[in-house]
Amino acid sequence: MYNSSNIIDYVIDAWEKLQEQAPLVQCITNSVAANYAANVLLAAGASPAMIDNPFEARSFTEISGALSINVGTPTTEQIQAMQISAKTAHEHDIPWVLDPVGYGPILKWRSDMVDELLQYHPSVIRGNASEIGALAGSLVQSKGVDSTLKSDEMFQLAHNLLTKTSCVAISGETDYILSNAMTCIVKVRGGSHLQPKITATGCALGTLIAAYCAVAPVHLATIAAHIHFAIAGKLAYDQAQTIGSFNTMFMDYIHMMDANLIEQYACIELISDD
Amino acid sequence: MYNSSNIIDYVIDAWEKLQEQAPLVQCITNSVAANYAANVLLAAGASPAMIDNPFEARSFTEISGALSINVGTPTTEQIQAMQISAKTAHEHDIPWVLDPVGYGPILKWRSDMVDELLQYHPSVIRGNASEIGALAGSLVQSKGVDSTLKSDEMFQLAHNLLTKTSCVAISGETDYILSNAMTCIVKVRGGSHLQPKITATGCALGTLIAAYCAVAPVHLATIAAHIHFAIAGKLAYDQAQTIGSFNTMFMDYIHMMDANLIEQYACIELISDD
Amino acid sequence: MYNSSNIIDYVIDAWEKLQEQAPLVQCITNSVAANYAANVLLAAGASPAMIDNPFEARSFTEISGALSINVGTPTTEQIQAMQISAKTAHEHDIPWVLDPVGYGPILKWRSDMVDELLQYHPSVIRGNASEIGALAGSLVQSKGVDSTLKSDEMFQLAHNLLTKTSCVAISGETDYILSNAMTCIVKVRGGSHLQPKITATGCALGTLIAAYCAVAPVHLATIAAHIHFAIAGKLAYDQAQTIGSFNTMFMDYIHMMDANLIEQYACIELISDD
Repeated sequence: MYNSSNIIDYVIDAWEKLQEQAPLVQCITNSVAANYAANVLLAAGASPAMIDNPFEARSFTEISGALSINVGTPTTEQIQAMQISAKTAHEHDIPWVLDPVGYGPILKWRSDMVDELLQYHPSVIRGNASEIGALAGSLVQSKGVDSTLKSDEMFQLAHNLLTKTSCVAISGETDYILSNAMTCIVKVRGGSHLQPKITATGCALGTLIAAYCAVAPVHLATIAAHIHFAIAGKLAYDQAQTIGSFNTMFMDYIHMMDANLIEQYACIELISDD
Repeated sequence: MYNSSNIIDYVIDAWEKLQEQAPLVQCITNSVAANYAANVLLAAGASPAMIDNPFEARSFTEISGALSINVGTPTTEQIQAMQISAKTAHEHDIPWVLDPVGYGPILKWRSDMVDELLQYHPSVIRGNASEIGALAGSLVQSKGVDSTLKSDEMFQLAHNLLTKTSCVAISGETDYILSNAMTCIVKVRGGSHLQPKITATGCALGTLIAAYCAVAPVHLATIAAHIHFAIAGKLAYDQAQTIGSFNTMFMDYIHMMDANLIEQYACIELISDD
Repeated sequence: MYNSSNIIDYVIDAWEKLQEQAPLVQCITNSVAANYAANVLLAAGASPAMIDNPFEARSFTEISGALSINVGTPTTEQIQAMQISAKTAHEHDIPWVLDPVGYGPILKWRSDMVDELLQYHPSVIRGNASEIGALAGSLVQSKGVDSTLKSDEMFQLAHNLLTKTSCVAISGETDYILSNAMTCIVKVRGGSHLQPKITATGCALGTLIAAYCAVAPVHLATIAAHIHFAIAGKLAYDQAQTIGSFNTMFMDYIHMMDANLIEQYACIELISDD
């Protein structure tokens, strides 16, 4: 049985494994996030590689510890690479994370492609409440990339998705993580209200989940990545109240994370999932 | 009749509307600017979305408050998206900004495409003196992306463009804004000599113009964006004389802009346009 | 005959020419590096232009002072642009730098293309030990983008490449530069262990080599770029021990480099090349 205390122990364990193994994480991501996500992964201890062409997708996924797919600004070649890499990951039991940016009827091309990718059973689906809601078949419409619903209204919808994936993460002011491996929903608090003012934060979180998935069970990896982000966001904000300085310090705390900080600042809550 | 005082009042009004409405701004921009421009728009209060594929261009432009097109590093798919989105914006009276990066005979592919886009009547054309000069049919040649002419030699040329667009902005050490809606040319001073040392500054300014166009008349929106940039640049430089720190503080002041700062630091001059 | 002292004099001379001439440097680079490399070039005194489409490649290379090709995240259109620009540079004696990111059997598409590009005789090939080793025909396999071999085990292998290029640079904790124009190998020390934690550092170094090649002989240009980077890295680290602050200060010192700093901090060693 999971409780707040043993989950935090598992998270510390995952963080330590991330440092030891520095797993190779293939990222197929958008043009806005590419640099930022690579820097977050390096700072966190992973080895990112942005291999996003269809001609090398298969061979590279095969040697990767995990795969992160983000559909923010897809090109035709990236779409092809996503399909090949997701299929390859599925065949080789390599964990992979799907970030369905902007999912909804307005952005039909990517949304159709996300639907197709579900056949390769993503290990984790991460999005904001609007994206997860739309993907879960709700009537909620995703207005571009904004999150228009409160996360706490959404997590019930997310259950539908657990037939398609092992874990669902709804990111927002408070994060919610659902998994077939847990009978509860895990709420992660922390972060800073400045984070949504910095682009690609969610995208980078998606790649960090993938990194943790390379070294820990999927649901614990997802929780670990959210806690890692939330603590770094909280500590950065404690020292820097402006966007620019916050951004610098956020990257610092992603890098300076350690077992003590996780122990001291992780703020999670387990809520019964009925 | 416009004068410096009432223009600044309109600018403050535009800034307030930007905060209230957080308009969705579609950006089709270059690989260098994507992250930076998104962060500038978020910091300024807008909601950026980098939708740049031809398959979603129409449906996304239809729901956007404004559109920004920058031809810095175009791909074939982006070129297609630009044409679709510009056409859609024109049909739906959605304001759109054209940033003809590198326009001139050396970069013929994009320049031909810029010529084609003019049929969709961009609300604003923003560029440096060399780009605006070349686009205006002058004999001035654009040497790559550099600005080789002084802005003050150029603004007469820019008048030719006012048959193709409602507003022309020539960015440089001093900015010049021309519009059919004004009988004068507006000069905006401020900024810092460090700004040209940071890539994509002009590109980000183009997207900020688009954001303001979603909430204010085109010519006032263009002035507002330039003033917003100039004040942030001046205040950042007052505190930080090096590139790295300047860049951090510039983003901070883009975010911390308010009516008082605009009132206190806006530095414009109206010059007779004969 | 070169010695440490006259090499440093040549480097100072190259740096001064870079400031005077601000050469136009065409960069065909990856999506992670585009913004960062452009900012490094601007900070260092060059004029970067990221022209990476096949339709403008020829005309733009013809007016460029140097060309930098990096195969980090290639698209089909970029691959075409690389071939056209490399051929054009070769025909017009414009120096060009090849950065074979991830070269090896896992990433076959780009590696085949790198092999093809060698026919246009790159002025400099820059990579980490693993990439240079793989390209030199060794049995060393490149695991993604990591460097798995010590540089000092590699420099002998690099000699094989001097039939294909005028200069080979192996970047790592210590950098090694080999050239047909020198009977010795030049070791450059400095930098900081934080540099590998910031993505695209190597890519940006490749573009800086190109910038120096526009104003100085190829082997001295390559040494100059490595010294410029190493000093900026060392001085930044002396003041900032965390990633975020280091990154800010690194850009500052790239910009604030001058003859005195080069004189005072350049740390090179000439080793006999038998």
